[in-house]
Amino acid sequence: MSHNTFGHLFRVTTWGESHGAAIGCVVDGCPPGIRFTRADIQAELDRRRPGQSRFVTQRREPDQVKILSGVLPEEEDGDMLVTTGTPISMLIENVDQRSKDYGDIAQRYRPGHADYTYEMKYGLRDYRGGGRSSARETAVRVAAGALARKVVPGLKIRGALVSMGEKVIDRANWDWDFIDHPDNPFFTPDPKSVAVFADYLDRIRKRGSSVGAVIEVVAEGVPIGLGAPVYAKLDQDICANLMSINAVKGVEIGNGFEAGRITGEENADEMRAGPDGKPVFLSNKAGGVLGGISTGEPVVARFAVKPTSSILTPRKSVDKTGAEVDVTTKGRHDPCVGIRAVPIGEAMLACTIADHYLRHRGQTGRI
Amino acid sequence: MSHNTFGHLFRVTTWGESHGAAIGCVVDGCPPGIRFTRADIQAELDRRRPGQSRFVTQRREPDQVKILSGVLPEEEDGDMLVTTGTPISMLIENVDQRSKDYGDIAQRYRPGHADYTYEMKYGLRDYRGGGRSSARETAVRVAAGALARKVVPGLKIRGALVSMGEKVIDRANWDWDFIDHPDNPFFTPDPKSVAVFADYLDRIRKRGSSVGAVIEVVAEGVPIGLGAPVYAKLDQDICANLMSINAVKGVEIGNGFEAGRITGEENADEMRAGPDGKPVFLSNKAGGVLGGISTGEPVVARFAVKPTSSILTPRKSVDKTGAEVDVTTKGRHDPCVGIRAVPIGEAMLACTIADHYLRHRGQTGRI
Amino acid sequence: MSHNTFGHLFRVTTWGESHGAAIGCVVDGCPPGIRFTRADIQAELDRRRPGQSRFVTQRREPDQVKILSGVLPEEEDGDMLVTTGTPISMLIENVDQRSKDYGDIAQRYRPGHADYTYEMKYGLRDYRGGGRSSARETAVRVAAGALARKVVPGLKIRGALVSMGEKVIDRANWDWDFIDHPDNPFFTPDPKSVAVFADYLDRIRKRGSSVGAVIEVVAEGVPIGLGAPVYAKLDQDICANLMSINAVKGVEIGNGFEAGRITGEENADEMRAGPDGKPVFLSNKAGGVLGGISTGEPVVARFAVKPTSSILTPRKSVDKTGAEVDVTTKGRHDPCVGIRAVPIGEAMLACTIADHYLRHRGQTGRI
Amino acid sequence: MSHNTFGHLFRVTTWGESHGAAIGCVVDGCPPGIRFTRADIQAELDRRRPGQSRFVTQRREPDQVKILSGVLPEEEDGDMLVTTGTPISMLIENVDQRSKDYGDIAQRYRPGHADYTYEMKYGLRDYRGGGRSSARETAVRVAAGALARKVVPGLKIRGALVSMGEKVIDRANWDWDFIDHPDNPFFTPDPKSVAVFADYLDRIRKRGSSVGAVIEVVAEGVPIGLGAPVYAKLDQDICANLMSINAVKGVEIGNGFEAGRITGEENADEMRAGPDGKPVFLSNKAGGVLGGISTGEPVVARFAVKPTSSILTPRKSVDKTGAEVDVTTKGRHDPCVGIRAVPIGEAMLACTIADHYLRHRGQTGRI
Repeated sequence: MSHNTFGHLFRVTTWGESHGAAIGCVVDGCPPGIRFTRADIQAELDRRRPGQSRFVTQRREPDQVKILSGVLPEEEDGDMLVTTGTPISMLIENVDQRSKDYGDIAQRYRPGHADYTYEMKYGLRDYRGGGRSSARETAVRVAAGALARKVVPGLKIRGALVSMGEKVIDRANWDWDFIDHPDNPFFTPDPKSVAVFADYLDRIRKRGSSVGAVIEVVAEGVPIGLGAPVYAKLDQDICANLMSINAVKGVEIGNGFEAGRITGEENADEMRAGPDGKPVFLSNKAGGVLGGISTGEPVVARFAVKPTSSILTPRKSVDKTGAEVDVTTKGRHDPCVGIRAVPIGEAMLACTIADHYLRHRGQTGRI
Repeated sequence: MSHNTFGHLFRVTTWGESHGAAIGCVVDGCPPGIRFTRADIQAELDRRRPGQSRFVTQRREPDQVKILSGVLPEEEDGDMLVTTGTPISMLIENVDQRSKDYGDIAQRYRPGHADYTYEMKYGLRDYRGGGRSSARETAVRVAAGALARKVVPGLKIRGALVSMGEKVIDRANWDWDFIDHPDNPFFTPDPKSVAVFADYLDRIRKRGSSVGAVIEVVAEGVPIGLGAPVYAKLDQDICANLMSINAVKGVEIGNGFEAGRITGEENADEMRAGPDGKPVFLSNKAGGVLGGISTGEPVVARFAVKPTSSILTPRKSVDKTGAEVDVTTKGRHDPCVGIRAVPIGEAMLACTIADHYLRHRGQTGRI
Repeated sequence: MSHNTFGHLFRVTTWGESHGAAIGCVVDGCPPGIRFTRADIQAELDRRRPGQSRFVTQRREPDQVKILSGVLPEEEDGDMLVTTGTPISMLIENVDQRSKDYGDIAQRYRPGHADYTYEMKYGLRDYRGGGRSSARETAVRVAAGALARKVVPGLKIRGALVSMGEKVIDRANWDWDFIDHPDNPFFTPDPKSVAVFADYLDRIRKRGSSVGAVIEVVAEGVPIGLGAPVYAKLDQDICANLMSINAVKGVEIGNGFEAGRITGEENADEMRAGPDGKPVFLSNKAGGVLGGISTGEPVVARFAVKPTSSILTPRKSVDKTGAEVDVTTKGRHDPCVGIRAVPIGEAMLACTIADHYLRHRGQTGRI
Repeated sequence: MSHNTFGHLFRVTTWGESHGAAIGCVVDGCPPGIRFTRADIQAELDRRRPGQSRFVTQRREPDQVKILSGVLPEEEDGDMLVTTGTPISMLIENVDQRSKDYGDIAQRYRPGHADYTYEMKYGLRDYRGGGRSSARETAVRVAAGALARKVVPGLKIRGALVSMGEKVIDRANWDWDFIDHPDNPFFTPDPKSVAVFADYLDRIRKRGSSVGAVIEVVAEGVPIGLGAPVYAKLDQDICANLMSINAVKGVEIGNGFEAGRITGEENADEMRAGPDGKPVFLSNKAGGVLGGISTGEPVVARFAVKPTSSILTPRKSVDKTGAEVDVTTKGRHDPCVGIRAVPIGEAMLACTIADHYLRHRGQTGRI
């Protein structure tokens, strides 16, 4: 049991605060012989990195990853690293922390933040930022996820922002290739939504406010058979790991909450014989998981990210003495933290599937 | 790591299939000195028991629990048991299994069921019912949950069905006392909804169909400080444990997916000084959890239950040889499995909170 | 984490007290498709069963195992069971508990027993026997071990008593076939030692005393590569699991404590090229484990079992009120609990290797 | 489950190889509010540090620890750090790695080393040193142990070398104060043994050989009640954690293997009423643990450390191609690795007790 670890065979432990010297993770249980470059990791980190548009926090963090253990350089190609099966330690230095921004709130509990609950739980808190609850912690998840993607042969994981506040994409326009397009600061799959989101979020941002979002993540190439019937369901672990992302308030698999509103006829995915003797599913309302076990169809999950409560509008609160105060959070914050949650959600999905891949192989030997 | 265990310090392992001799659980890590009677456990089991109205499966299972270990009878009061701190084994015999009902589907994969994924994962499956995916497995969770309720002093856990298919309760009519009323076969908190649900579900049932539902569970009296900032968030573990219930497709905490649609001003729960110097929250959109840690406000979660795919309408599928077939499930099934999910959801919430209570006490000693 | 579970992928949870209704275990994570009969399990239980000679406790327990879940009967052969990959629950009823034997010691702490520490830890204890510390608990380990032996193809596990009190076997006489010979009530591999042990133990037994022993367990057919370099060493987990057996006070691998007395030249096992290109080891002082990882040589471990403190000689102690008392334990006890520890040690070794087999397969896929 | 983590509530994950950039650990689950200085950690590291006498490896490593997360500086005293309850990451840079020393053995398996088993398990290995099996990994255990010592109020942990090869200390001369005396390069508690050990080890060292040792570690001030009856015995976890130290081949608690040679009368520790109404034990053969649970007496454990197989005498082996070779290990090695194992054993004992302290508090609340 661990408060700062997830996964069982592919296991990620993270450490570090927003305003300490560095953040990092240890990936334990990675299979030996996985080949990757530092650039593979960095590329994913760069997608999550702050300061890349006016729509995300202006904190300037290069987020350069150092790989400290668990790999050997390949003799023929010095850039190529090979995992040895021992723990892989990765570290990212904090460069642009500005603790002084937080001076005002050292004694005050920001409404909607963990300030109050930290203090009640631990008897003290690191007031110089969000401590472990800072979105900064998620950078190392992305690094771990970049490695996880390599563990399962043929696995492809992508994510998209599907709504921001009251604005929703048009799924008819879905274009995966557009997600990482340089003109798309939102990870939206709907090119037509960019202008809408930009206009909407500019207004939110300019009045010092913030807004929530919903993210969809999809894994293709997931082998059939990952997961288990009850307490190690693949969908359960996906949801647990997505819920562990800061600010996430809800998660669903496949048609999710929609399943609560329809009938058995409408909900069940029918099957027909496929070209190679394997069954094909005529729909994927289940989101690639039946009875907790992967079907071979794409695994589809969605999660809701709340608006950050670090806003400029004064909110009623109390301070450590119990006195009533108004709180305004200056600092530098994302007007929509949901945007940068896209690569984070992808990383958590990748880690979950890598873990279940190894678990399934361990118990059954059927991979 | 275990596929059939949940919890860390208050730890529940379950075993048993729908059509074997018995089902059971082992509750490990329960504090010593907890006093309870067998009737306390049985009362919760009776709430989940099938066959109590025309709206649930007609399988007749008395669900009498046997307590085999981990307790001592109190000298003064033979009905009163005291936990000794060692594992508590509870067992429920299967009485009314009718495997012959399943003869037809031994060779066929029911659409929307785990038949296909079990076979792919394990290379064989127990065709005589849902195996571990049967709702029958959940009985022992309810038994464990009855014990978990005793672990945290002052803890009160309740649940309610808040929608069935397209029918939604009116929250203005919410009456907790009505939930267990004998005229309420739905665990609905809205007395006016009974006639609506009854009429709706009768139509569903008569045509051999099924329908989904949404359940809300609420824990009051949760101490401040349970949970942790990242991978042991209280809300994360609640969602994971609710997702482990068969047929659940989505979970949310507090305002949940709504948080993805609103602004920071709308979302943050403001605080004021309370009468005893402790802050009071002016709202509870967070659902009792901030930064993964309990605030002392009621913990509120919701989960969506899909309609069972065991329906009389023929659905397209394939059999083990790959041939295309139509599948109709006879057996005896719940037209809305969401109804009986109410005490199950309560049990999972109770177990999660009991576990985090012990974990918080272990790390911090602050209880 | 669990106080009553061992193993990670092949995972055994046990429950039950010496004087309750039954004892049992849940084996989780067993691979699907393992074929065995109830008689395979029973045969191992019969080796550990009490009452089979004058040298072991006269408690009469048939120790008939019931298998309640996780298996399907094979269609062609009803005695043959096949694991389904779901948890296997096994149960043994307690038949011959005589709690009245323990009336005298309900208020007194037996020296050398856990009476005092239980009471201090939990605030109460099950005085009707040893509670969880009774040797009775070990029966279900043997049942789990019988299953574990089937998990690793080609695995052969055997054990032997190598010394009893001051009497030591002559290794020159070692004969594995003699261990289960009907004229051998001691699991000794040295036929000439039987008369010595019998005479020695008769004298111990008749004066109401008890004596310690040392057991050696050996696993052949262990694949190369099981274990890990640091905190999941194969030898570490073997020692931990052997130490979990009641009354065990020391454990060693290979030459064990002898390694502390010799030089590097004497200790290192040299290697030469073998007939099939694989290296052969010229000795096995390492006991089949180098750097925590199996070498393919036989895995050899030894453990010391203390004499039971349930003896007829009065010993100084105190009672619950703190008053000084003399304690004599009547009950029925093993004059040398080490004898029946042989099949228990084998079982723990089997479970440890089965677990590491699955873990190695999970991480590396190299089996 | 994790291959590179130990502990459950006080949980230590280590990473890093002998010849990489750095080694480190993450301590998770540490209670908040623990006060310590970097010097507290460094002092323990300095006791284990190589290069301090001619009797240990001449590798020059300053072993300066960096603390990267999980602490706040105290306002009044900048040297004093306070734990926040979040993971504490500690890092030590590798300074004096000389990989070229290992060029010769990249293709050869050193007898008695993990070279062969690593290659078989993972399919590749880090030939530039012992990889994870290097004694270097243990430095971070010592850092974690220094923190663990602070977790349990009143805990005092000490260790001593009690034999080296065939030379054994005289327990009549035992003097704890002499252990860290500057004239004592052996952590021996017997001042008269220094000259004997020095002479003996000089001869071993000069002929390029090595020798084993036995270490005793003792914990005083351990609260009564830590541990559990079966699979979380305090002595089991102590033995497991000591066995995880490189080169350890055997472990024992209290009188250990001696218990296998004596009678029940001789073995049981009798009790009498103590001055404050609490019982006192008249002896401590149990080593402070009865039935897996601490008695309040000193916890005493011993472990045997094998001689390093990195010796100058040529030994028979094979290379990666299967060809027969003679292997001589140059590098810089400890003639008796058991010496520096003293602070490592202390650290493992401290971590184990800290973990069980939190576990006991979690389950029972009785601390």
